[in-house]
Amino acid sequence: MTYQPPVRDYAFLLRDVLELERYANLPAFADASMDTVDQILEEAGRFTAEVLAPLNSVGDKEGCHWHPDNSVTTPKGFKEAYRQLVDGGWPGLGSDPAYGGQGLPHVVNLAFSEMSSAANMAFSMYPGLTHGAYSAIKVGGSQAQKDLYLPKLASFQWGGTMNLTEPHCGTDLGLLRTKAVPQADGTYKISGQKIWISGGEQDLTENIVHLVLARIEGAPMGTRGISLFIVPKFIPDKDGNPGERNAVKCLGLEEKMGIHGNATCVIAHEEATGWLIGEENRGLSIMFVMMNEARLGVGMQGIAQAEAAYQAAAEFAKDRLQGRSLTGPKNPDGPADPIIVHPDVRRMLMDAKAIVEGGRAFLFWTALHGDLAEASPDEAVRQKGHDYMALMTPVLKGFLTDRGFNVCSDAMQVHGGSGFTEHFPVSQYLRDCRIALIYEGTNGIQALDLVGRKLAAEGGRGVMGFFAELDAFIEAQEADEGMKPFTEGLARGKAELQEATLWLMQNGLANPDNAGAASTDYMHLFGLVALAYMWALMAKTALAKIAGGATDPIYQEKLTVGRYYIARVLPETAGRLAKLKTGAEALMALPVESF
Amino acid sequence: MTYQPPVRDYAFLLRDVLELERYANLPAFADASMDTVDQILEEAGRFTAEVLAPLNSVGDKEGCHWHPDNSVTTPKGFKEAYRQLVDGGWPGLGSDPAYGGQGLPHVVNLAFSEMSSAANMAFSMYPGLTHGAYSAIKVGGSQAQKDLYLPKLASFQWGGTMNLTEPHCGTDLGLLRTKAVPQADGTYKISGQKIWISGGEQDLTENIVHLVLARIEGAPMGTRGISLFIVPKFIPDKDGNPGERNAVKCLGLEEKMGIHGNATCVIAHEEATGWLIGEENRGLSIMFVMMNEARLGVGMQGIAQAEAAYQAAAEFAKDRLQGRSLTGPKNPDGPADPIIVHPDVRRMLMDAKAIVEGGRAFLFWTALHGDLAEASPDEAVRQKGHDYMALMTPVLKGFLTDRGFNVCSDAMQVHGGSGFTEHFPVSQYLRDCRIALIYEGTNGIQALDLVGRKLAAEGGRGVMGFFAELDAFIEAQEADEGMKPFTEGLARGKAELQEATLWLMQNGLANPDNAGAASTDYMHLFGLVALAYMWALMAKTALAKIAGGATDPIYQEKLTVGRYYIARVLPETAGRLAKLKTGAEALMALPVESF
Repeated sequence: MTYQPPVRDYAFLLRDVLELERYANLPAFADASMDTVDQILEEAGRFTAEVLAPLNSVGDKEGCHWHPDNSVTTPKGFKEAYRQLVDGGWPGLGSDPAYGGQGLPHVVNLAFSEMSSAANMAFSMYPGLTHGAYSAIKVGGSQAQKDLYLPKLASFQWGGTMNLTEPHCGTDLGLLRTKAVPQADGTYKISGQKIWISGGEQDLTENIVHLVLARIEGAPMGTRGISLFIVPKFIPDKDGNPGERNAVKCLGLEEKMGIHGNATCVIAHEEATGWLIGEENRGLSIMFVMMNEARLGVGMQGIAQAEAAYQAAAEFAKDRLQGRSLTGPKNPDGPADPIIVHPDVRRMLMDAKAIVEGGRAFLFWTALHGDLAEASPDEAVRQKGHDYMALMTPVLKGFLTDRGFNVCSDAMQVHGGSGFTEHFPVSQYLRDCRIALIYEGTNGIQALDLVGRKLAAEGGRGVMGFFAELDAFIEAQEADEGMKPFTEGLARGKAELQEATLWLMQNGLANPDNAGAASTDYMHLFGLVALAYMWALMAKTALAKIAGGATDPIYQEKLTVGRYYIARVLPETAGRLAKLKTGAEALMALPVESF
Repeated sequence: MTYQPPVRDYAFLLRDVLELERYANLPAFADASMDTVDQILEEAGRFTAEVLAPLNSVGDKEGCHWHPDNSVTTPKGFKEAYRQLVDGGWPGLGSDPAYGGQGLPHVVNLAFSEMSSAANMAFSMYPGLTHGAYSAIKVGGSQAQKDLYLPKLASFQWGGTMNLTEPHCGTDLGLLRTKAVPQADGTYKISGQKIWISGGEQDLTENIVHLVLARIEGAPMGTRGISLFIVPKFIPDKDGNPGERNAVKCLGLEEKMGIHGNATCVIAHEEATGWLIGEENRGLSIMFVMMNEARLGVGMQGIAQAEAAYQAAAEFAKDRLQGRSLTGPKNPDGPADPIIVHPDVRRMLMDAKAIVEGGRAFLFWTALHGDLAEASPDEAVRQKGHDYMALMTPVLKGFLTDRGFNVCSDAMQVHGGSGFTEHFPVSQYLRDCRIALIYEGTNGIQALDLVGRKLAAEGGRGVMGFFAELDAFIEAQEADEGMKPFTEGLARGKAELQEATLWLMQNGLANPDNAGAASTDYMHLFGLVALAYMWALMAKTALAKIAGGATDPIYQEKLTVGRYYIARVLPETAGRLAKLKTGAEALMALPVESF
């Protein structure tokens, strides 16, 4: 069995839990009736399962090829699949109709992205980064730049990249050295070496649009002197078609632990011609727009790989006969029972379901807030949307990729020795997934962004709003016996999160290292409580459906998995709180030379 | 910098904490004065760092080669290194002098094994399994078998393997089908296919001794009908030299996520000639002797890879300049501070030290009990040694490999994007380490062994003895202010472990699924408390040394890392206890078809 897109779960979330149809009066949602969405996602499921998934292992085993003429070929089959992607009209799902997109809500596009990523993460990074480049130009570009580039990027006809990292600077972009020299014609000559450029060179698109961070000659040092440039591989001619070859080339590919099918390039800009996007020295702020979108997408990748790995593990656990149930044979006519009868195997599968389905709900719930931040006519709703997008993004990225990786590792464990061989898909899921903890800002950077910036933003309005929402929800369920296990767990977790938040406020200012020392535990505590809320929301929906006579087993399943989450995942919060409250002292006590 | 053997830490453990010289009156220890041991380990450190470590990445990149004549060649350089290993006299460290060994305590040999494994896990598995075969024949073989095989295995002149797994049976050996047909001359014809045979074919030794589990024709089904056979690749001639080629061959190699330098073979026995070891149908009990030794060795591998990965991460964190300390520049003349100034980077490095050094102490402490179980003249000491070896082995295997893998993953995280590339060693440590969670019984099987067998063994004598030891230790430190942070943490953890143990006794019998459902959380709870005890023992030693005027910084370092362990690692116990006490109900509630 290959990957099966979880379209039933998407329908549950979009239709039942988030009730997308409530927003039918809003622009992006008008064309997104649930029947249309169901149809689109069914179709997308077929495309990703039938076209992209079979190429996943091909890409892993073959990898990309660099040639001495600086060209790169992607694994066998990728080019044809990419053409099918473009021809099928998939690129434009979430893009602006003004540039050829379909303008659907981001939350719908997210489901498509998850399926693509689960089916073939390395492949789906090519269009993923292209969409990021689209967003950056849309936010920061001039009208002429938008007219020239957005239709090509929205249709995936051209590829897009982000050129940030240099050998000596990754997280700390203030150190970057790539320079931009202004020319008389208003363009710039860009020179410098960039590394880890995903899709920096490939044979899928007729042109590649590099978005490059560089320092204009004479600009201030540090992050306040960084500008953003468009450096196309082929300079568009008068008709907007690929023209003269630009002086940007791929010097080689990285050997990596995973995502072999994606070309990770060393890119040399050798007085390449570039066009400034937005204002001088304001490049980072535009790049951060792109990066925030990308961070939510990376959190999604963690869940996507976890879903695929879970599916492989569940199938294996139902097929593999080994040992007998501790409570008596469950397959008495067979030589042994399927290993899914063993509680410890069940534990790994239940953990996976609890994280994947809860994490997906958290992603979708946040993405919907992002849609409302743009589309709602109600300013309070827009503000809450912006607040939540800002607050939740680092949690989605850091918490969900940490947990997604654990799910992949557990899925390997369910496979036993088979999982360690490359005959089964789970090693690739584990290896591919691992990069998600690192790129677009390591998870440690996400945790620091959360405690150092997002908590305090607008005087703490985001997090206070979230606590108020949880309190209101818990109070509203008070009379509902069926909701008790959920609201009790949620209330306990919320109290711990609030205590941790208060601790941070009191101790982070006195010694900033206290905030740094607490950051990762706080991020996990936050994620655990957010998922408890998601499970409570899903439980409420499921209980209402069952009370209304719905017989689809998914509703009972959600209640069962949700109760498991509260009983066996959430209790981790106590240890997280205890650890983070010990502060920086024990953590920083060892002298550097003792490491 | 390549791997640096932690010989200073070995000396601290063996000399100061375990006080090996106390046992100088015992046979194995008589030749193991601490000066001798220091010298041996210094020398071993040089050998592993200079000969084995440089081949680690070679083995990973090149892998092993299978040839159509069923031969296998190991990666370039392995053969020469193996010769140096044999010529250097390293094989016999822990083997019986009667068979050419040096007869040192196992705890000393363990240090050598850790260094070999950290330097090159794939390589060191060849001699590792050879030593396992040595142990099985030593325990179960006839005198003639011992005389013929043990000198060759003790010297590593011949290789050894374990032939257990078949395509349809891994954990559940009762299903195995390989058959043995008795011959008139007292030998057996062995037929069947075995998979995942580490070192099943190689070019390092002139002969390979396969220890093969098979079912004698007519033997009962299940585990009570399994016998153990010696199947040599070349049948020894009258002089004990490799003679006629036996009908056992390698059909191919597995592609794996890691340990590429070790040949993982499909082995076909085609009426191969085999010799029974021990009694008919009693093969598993001998194999379990070998397996128990191997399980402690696998726990060691988890710590070894973690040590190597930690070293790489610490070096990277001290070199890589990126960002500024939250409390002001620490490297004001440089472009940025080394990333070790950041609390969240420090957290990962401190976690690593706390687990690696605490885990190593736990391994050594248990191994010493194993030595005393054999060598002590005092029956109570021997009994305690046996009890602890039995009780601790699954914890060492399961807990230390789970934690070792996390350390490797954190070490990758410290590296950021560099860690995901194969230019840095940490991807290999992570990939190689992953198998340790699976082989020699998955960690889930270890947890089940712990709760289902080891806790109840001898009426719970082992675990009750351990609790009594902890109580006595805590009480004895009562007046010692410096020990307070350690004994308070330990007492809290011990109370939780005891509560969990009681819960298991009360609930595991009523419903065995409760025991299964609790097993992994219980194993981690046990491991966390055992490491708290180790850190308390190390702290007591360090405080005494400092009080006695010792100025070596290691003593203060141990106190600092120990306090970190108690403050920031141990608090996980509360969540583990809460989770396991929820029992099997929530865990088993979802119908199989819903997965």
